[in-house]
Amino acid sequence: MEFLARQSRLFCPFLNKTSPATLRALSASPASANGVSNLQVAARECPVMGAAMAVQSSRSYATSTKPLHFEQSSQAMANETSIDSVHAKAGVFDTSKGICKHGLAVMKAAQAVTGEAAEKEAPAIKTASTSTKLHSNVFNYEDFYQAELTKKHKDKSYRYFNNINRLAKEFPKAHTASEVERVTVWCSNDYLGMSKNKEVLKSMRNTLDTYGAGAGGTRNIAGHNRHAVELEAALADLHSKESALVFSSCYVANDATLSTLGSKLPDCVILSDQLNHASMIQGIRHSGARKVVFKHNDLVDLENKLKSLPIEVPKIIAFESVYSMCGSIAPIEEICDLADKYGAITFLDEVHAVGMYGPRGAGVAEHLDFEAHASGRPENTIMSRVDIITGTLGKAYGCVGGYIAGSAKFVDMIRSLAPGFIFTTSLPPSIMAGANTAIEYQKMTIRDRAAQQLNTRYVKAKLAELDIPVVPNPSHIVPVLVGDAETAKIASDMLLERFDIYVQAINYPTVPVGEERLRVTPTPGHDTKLADNLVNALETVWTELGIKRVKDWEVVGGLAGVGVKDSKPVQPIWTDAQLGLTPVTGVQADKVVVEKETVSAIPIEATA
Amino acid sequence: MEFLARQSRLFCPFLNKTSPATLRALSASPASANGVSNLQVAARECPVMGAAMAVQSSRSYATSTKPLHFEQSSQAMANETSIDSVHAKAGVFDTSKGICKHGLAVMKAAQAVTGEAAEKEAPAIKTASTSTKLHSNVFNYEDFYQAELTKKHKDKSYRYFNNINRLAKEFPKAHTASEVERVTVWCSNDYLGMSKNKEVLKSMRNTLDTYGAGAGGTRNIAGHNRHAVELEAALADLHSKESALVFSSCYVANDATLSTLGSKLPDCVILSDQLNHASMIQGIRHSGARKVVFKHNDLVDLENKLKSLPIEVPKIIAFESVYSMCGSIAPIEEICDLADKYGAITFLDEVHAVGMYGPRGAGVAEHLDFEAHASGRPENTIMSRVDIITGTLGKAYGCVGGYIAGSAKFVDMIRSLAPGFIFTTSLPPSIMAGANTAIEYQKMTIRDRAAQQLNTRYVKAKLAELDIPVVPNPSHIVPVLVGDAETAKIASDMLLERFDIYVQAINYPTVPVGEERLRVTPTPGHDTKLADNLVNALETVWTELGIKRVKDWEVVGGLAGVGVKDSKPVQPIWTDAQLGLTPVTGVQADKVVVEKETVSAIPIEATA
Repeated sequence: MEFLARQSRLFCPFLNKTSPATLRALSASPASANGVSNLQVAARECPVMGAAMAVQSSRSYATSTKPLHFEQSSQAMANETSIDSVHAKAGVFDTSKGICKHGLAVMKAAQAVTGEAAEKEAPAIKTASTSTKLHSNVFNYEDFYQAELTKKHKDKSYRYFNNINRLAKEFPKAHTASEVERVTVWCSNDYLGMSKNKEVLKSMRNTLDTYGAGAGGTRNIAGHNRHAVELEAALADLHSKESALVFSSCYVANDATLSTLGSKLPDCVILSDQLNHASMIQGIRHSGARKVVFKHNDLVDLENKLKSLPIEVPKIIAFESVYSMCGSIAPIEEICDLADKYGAITFLDEVHAVGMYGPRGAGVAEHLDFEAHASGRPENTIMSRVDIITGTLGKAYGCVGGYIAGSAKFVDMIRSLAPGFIFTTSLPPSIMAGANTAIEYQKMTIRDRAAQQLNTRYVKAKLAELDIPVVPNPSHIVPVLVGDAETAKIASDMLLERFDIYVQAINYPTVPVGEERLRVTPTPGHDTKLADNLVNALETVWTELGIKRVKDWEVVGGLAGVGVKDSKPVQPIWTDAQLGLTPVTGVQADKVVVEKETVSAIPIEATA
Repeated sequence: MEFLARQSRLFCPFLNKTSPATLRALSASPASANGVSNLQVAARECPVMGAAMAVQSSRSYATSTKPLHFEQSSQAMANETSIDSVHAKAGVFDTSKGICKHGLAVMKAAQAVTGEAAEKEAPAIKTASTSTKLHSNVFNYEDFYQAELTKKHKDKSYRYFNNINRLAKEFPKAHTASEVERVTVWCSNDYLGMSKNKEVLKSMRNTLDTYGAGAGGTRNIAGHNRHAVELEAALADLHSKESALVFSSCYVANDATLSTLGSKLPDCVILSDQLNHASMIQGIRHSGARKVVFKHNDLVDLENKLKSLPIEVPKIIAFESVYSMCGSIAPIEEICDLADKYGAITFLDEVHAVGMYGPRGAGVAEHLDFEAHASGRPENTIMSRVDIITGTLGKAYGCVGGYIAGSAKFVDMIRSLAPGFIFTTSLPPSIMAGANTAIEYQKMTIRDRAAQQLNTRYVKAKLAELDIPVVPNPSHIVPVLVGDAETAKIASDMLLERFDIYVQAINYPTVPVGEERLRVTPTPGHDTKLADNLVNALETVWTELGIKRVKDWEVVGGLAGVGVKDSKPVQPIWTDAQLGLTPVTGVQADKVVVEKETVSAIPIEATA
């Protein structure tokens, strides 16, 4: 190690110029409240040391066994014993970049160092498989786990979590691992900021005080209560269905419902959109039913596949209204037509649409009859034609949990048969009460979702002006195409470290390889200033990293709808009229951002 | 209908004696804040009308589409048009019973009536499958759902949920559907009353105020935060493992982990205890791995099965520490021995044990080295030999959510691969903070779980004195054997309606047919007075319904360990010494109940 330390000194201009005493001082002085030393902060900036730390981080990962202890390791670094051969290979240290600002990077570096420290410090913590299972030919479980992780690193799909703490009183700001550092969150699914809504918080606080923290049981055993009854009534009313049923999450709702339906209905065939969410894919797999995948939103392909099945066989068409990673919207009415024609039922996941579309926030199915729903409770709507609607309480409604809505018999059957519903603890009373408040709140006003749509339009328009590629879509999602896993991660890290902007990179398997993106989700709280900051930051990142613009995609024939020659512009599903804009005069993009505190409520009547 | 009404009058002594004006008045006067009329309350007491309402209830079920409207239906009843032929068949009305006290029964009755009303009132709400799908030979989905429900009714496994609202300030009391009615809850899995713990509530309230309602994203996208980091560190520390990972629930944790492990490990075989929880059964099924079931807690059977498998094949032994419906406890150490011998890993579900056993509340695995863990952080413990531990935040810790703990590589692999973890919204910050507080609180004191054990001993001893059958077990569960589904439900209803005591009946498929039971779970808050009330109520119910006593089970050769000749008494796993009782002098059952407010903390040292 002494040799390595000397080698490091030789190659590293920083170590070369800095005395051991200064190194020790840097190691002892904390750069943040977290106890991270200035030396660690500096080390993260070094392209060699930073890379070495990242490798260690990937091996040791965040979920360390005990609160992180940084000092021992940084002290070791100061003693020049822990700078390894990776560092010795080269010697670049660009101090002009300044130190990294955010706890995120520091956290990762600290984790890397701590991972090493934890092994030394905690001899009592052993895994049985490595410590006691030493038969010569038994299976080596730990090696197997490592091999699986190595695969993830190799294909760049290994995930690093960012420590982001969204603040109720500073929406849409969050603090990082350090409580004093602020970033603007641009990728949350709390689309309307309802997790910070005063009414929701009040309702949760009151319920917490009166009924306590948890439900204390499954729905059948001590966990059924007024909050469940009221929430399910509100959800059934929202979707104009006979019944609704709440689950731990919509992942569980989709999985449990499709697997129960698919396994119970005799010889059932499930027709599944190619881009369906993992929860539906799992549910279909778990059902054991025959699965037929149809091309994304492709009615011709769907009809061909329906046509090939016997009319008397039970069939489920499973699809989403808003596809979250590309923002596309399903042709719900036409799918209902096909379902009727071929004796299928429709299973519609409105997870990214509830709270966001329709005059009462019931989703895209409601939005398609916007004016009719806005003026009353119409019959024979597109929403009433959908057999099963699933949704979440954890995105636009700001809480957690999922649900299904449909006919009373259908819901009662799932209630009676689905293990994922039966054998699990109910959601806490405060969560159910908060979600109920959020639903009722959003039933009464379109203000938040209209503001969200206007801010989405603004961001999309500004990015278009700069030729920064956005996957075209009619919804509230702004998928900014990068096209490479490593670049997407670097872009995301740059936004965070240099611009205080948090947008997570979306890589495989969430999107196909080569279609990696930054998924931007504006909220009503992102005003023009914040939006301009984002757009300017993206412009810098695109320039510095040389990421393809729309014109570059045009040259290669386009990808994911970007740069496709002669493609028609996509119209947003929220029309100008629904947003209360005057279609005759038009409105310039930079005039339409609605700031949360100044916007006046747009009454539903005004939009009808 | 006029004819039926007249027939009813003829046979029903109540209708015969009561004027239409009085009926109308009874119908208009509410018996509770809920808007339930006195007529409905009375009708529920009628053995004929009550039965008819229950039948309707089973057809229409609780999750009605809108807030319940009782008045229209009760008005109809007063008009003597809705009393149907069921009522006309006989005429018994025992007014000496008084009216039923609880919103529960009223709720059910109201649901029954409302179910009918909803169909009439809400023409706009139609299910597509009945309204628009009228092809002659397409599959009839609604009929199929109904047929599945009919099966559940026929085998008595159809479930009626009781509306129970546990009150934070009146623990262990709850209100029913009516806010003014109180019942004592004796079947919650909030075993320690932590959902009402002041520290937990304070932590949740503060987190709610600072960080808002929901996490706003998956762990990878905007939903990773300090609360997740801190909670997982606390859990890893609790079980002395390198890492831990939090899921929506332990149902999801078990399902996701077993299905991922079983599908990834090549040619994996999962050995599963016969009484394993549904979540593990589902996880194993979803993995597609070969499953070998071994007899409950039977080491000989397990070894025979392990022996039959090639030594080099990866194997998982999946089992629980405390089996929740019978209270049995697994021979964890011996199972670890077998795992070592045959190259298997151990997957231990401590869901009903975390917070409840061990000096720090880590579960039975910790409890087995109680003194060693109480006096330090020992090496080579039984807990350290278990490869994977899963647990819940929703029972003894009073919140919601589940987790796994194990080696860093194992946890990182599950984090990276399990769809049930990856594709779901994180638990709300306030829930994670509350759970963390509960874990840390229970790490510091054994007071609550010792009190819980003492109260369990008391209830078991008192029931034994009365020859009321309890499935013998060494844990905190008091499974009172009934042996028949219908009787169990009637007993549960009697306890609630006549004695203000809520104990849910446990029927198939949660327990085998013929082993139906009332599962009683004492908490630290159930003092001697409440316990005596329970025991006296059970005595009355057993006498009135003629339910088998221990001596009756002896005659038929015993069942589920009850009434088995020459069986040795089961010793509780919490010893007298661990509970701080003096083994020499002994303590009488009626002296050992520890009342929550008066008990002095039993320091861990004192029990070592």
